[in-house]
Amino acid sequence: MTQTVADIGEFGLIRLIRDLIDREGVKAPELTMGIGDDSASFLPREGYEILVTCDCMVEGRHYLKGHINPLDLGSRAMVMNISDIGAMGGMPTFAIVSLGVEKDAPVHDILEMYRGFFQELNPLGAAVIGGNITRSDNSNFIDITLIGEVERGKIIRRSTARPDDIMLVTGYPGQAAAGLNILLNSKEKGDLQSDPLVRAYNRPVHRAKEGRAAALSGCATSMIDISDGLLGDLGHICEESGVGAEIIRKALPVSAHMRAFSGPNGHDPYEWVLGESDDYELIITCAPGNKDRICSAITETSDVPVAEIGRITSKKDGIKIVFPDGSKHEAAAVGWDHFKK
Amino acid sequence: MTQTVADIGEFGLIRLIRDLIDREGVKAPELTMGIGDDSASFLPREGYEILVTCDCMVEGRHYLKGHINPLDLGSRAMVMNISDIGAMGGMPTFAIVSLGVEKDAPVHDILEMYRGFFQELNPLGAAVIGGNITRSDNSNFIDITLIGEVERGKIIRRSTARPDDIMLVTGYPGQAAAGLNILLNSKEKGDLQSDPLVRAYNRPVHRAKEGRAAALSGCATSMIDISDGLLGDLGHICEESGVGAEIIRKALPVSAHMRAFSGPNGHDPYEWVLGESDDYELIITCAPGNKDRICSAITETSDVPVAEIGRITSKKDGIKIVFPDGSKHEAAAVGWDHFKK
Repeated sequence: MTQTVADIGEFGLIRLIRDLIDREGVKAPELTMGIGDDSASFLPREGYEILVTCDCMVEGRHYLKGHINPLDLGSRAMVMNISDIGAMGGMPTFAIVSLGVEKDAPVHDILEMYRGFFQELNPLGAAVIGGNITRSDNSNFIDITLIGEVERGKIIRRSTARPDDIMLVTGYPGQAAAGLNILLNSKEKGDLQSDPLVRAYNRPVHRAKEGRAAALSGCATSMIDISDGLLGDLGHICEESGVGAEIIRKALPVSAHMRAFSGPNGHDPYEWVLGESDDYELIITCAPGNKDRICSAITETSDVPVAEIGRITSKKDGIKIVFPDGSKHEAAAVGWDHFKK
Repeated sequence: MTQTVADIGEFGLIRLIRDLIDREGVKAPELTMGIGDDSASFLPREGYEILVTCDCMVEGRHYLKGHINPLDLGSRAMVMNISDIGAMGGMPTFAIVSLGVEKDAPVHDILEMYRGFFQELNPLGAAVIGGNITRSDNSNFIDITLIGEVERGKIIRRSTARPDDIMLVTGYPGQAAAGLNILLNSKEKGDLQSDPLVRAYNRPVHRAKEGRAAALSGCATSMIDISDGLLGDLGHICEESGVGAEIIRKALPVSAHMRAFSGPNGHDPYEWVLGESDDYELIITCAPGNKDRICSAITETSDVPVAEIGRITSKKDGIKIVFPDGSKHEAAAVGWDHFKK
């Protein structure tokens, strides 16, 4: 019979998780106290600022049971947070994991989820140092607070883009949205797990190394990760920086997988590229003359493609999309808002 | 009509919260980036370790709608976390607040909850610097990660109690359990809000200043906050320190309110003092000769009473309670475990 959380209790589960962290997690030299006391503690490194971010996934809203396995779920939840640290130019150091779990949740699934965390954290030398487990009767949730560090003064904000900067984007935004569409419209879920678009949704990739390379190049004027969709997050840059933007539609990166899936199924791939999508690519702005320096800094650490997709304009111009015929259309901000509608 | 979260959307709510933090929250000099980017950031102070703790409250499990108002709810959620920082000898600096909210939640209630956070954080110079808002259809939750600091080397752990140490406890543990009992067994909730035992449950008090005073005295050998009940948390000290303990029953502090309520209602007050209760008092251990130094360090900062309730023994003796007739009884660990039963 499958062992559940109710079988071993909160403290039994905490003990198993603590053992797993000891066995399979990274040992961080700065950590002075890990799981097992009222608080965890660590010694900050001199010359660094501390970064803190927090993101939560609720079952039925941010992921669907049966559509994703626990290992991928853990990886995905951690990637969301690593992405936020990377988008400031930093690297993660410590994670605090707060879980809401139903009492009949299988213990094995929870440990697998932690293995998903380790798959993302271990290569970066970051460790789970604390958290909380609480019973939640109606839906499971995973709330992660991730701590990171960045050399003092090297943070890249979203509020510092300037008119005439160009906009760069990493990878292929929108693939996760296409993957979710496939999952929601298919009856057989099992076979889909290896589909590249479904993988982009279930197992997204962060761009922390790329973000850090851009930050350390000294040439990025602003940066944000795309978690509310390309247009949604470009909207955040524009709002916080007090600028507008012009996107060249034909410059938007459309992957071969997306192209192959979209056409025959009657979808417009650009709607996915621009709209709500759980990809964690980066938008980076810089002076036009600095594009090559940023691109080569990224190329040194990664083979992810970088596309120039348009330029920053003045606030009064809003956000516009330039079509191949030269016409310009207002882009309504279509970022993901779970509460509205 | 009451404005709900659905009316203003996630980003509208975030904007209101950000404004409220700017207007009514404390400004922390170390903060280099607050709410409004991918991550928050701060400059750690030299010579300090960073503390991190996390605690989550789920509606229907840790609090009951209609039994507590949003201001008290916010205060209570923050106190739980401040207590964990205080139990290490530290003081809180930054809070990250992750909320799960139903779409018809009144905006006013959420802002009131933040005011409850401020009531606890502002006097300590600590600030809300980030978080997350997510829609949760089935129950609201409040998940707080609290960051604190403590002078390097001054942390007091739960794992370092020694045989022959004495055990001290602050205040009156168990009052919250009695208050919850009153709430659950009364039809009229409104009139109860001023009952001192109900206040102890709805509006508990942390002992961060007292914990810090004990830590800085250099005399505390171990410390823990009582969130799983006196016996439950003494059990954590014993497990982590590899020791046993002997509690003198008649030395346990029973408040006048508790005594007045218990007798006429046929309750044994000691069950509440020892058992599951959401008080946030401290258990502190020290060498017998250091009791006065710890007590006077605490008295200098606070008028909370401190009681000597027994002594640490060796592991093989387990946890025992000594009755007035001299007989000793094994105390089954009855800490709060939300999953088991």
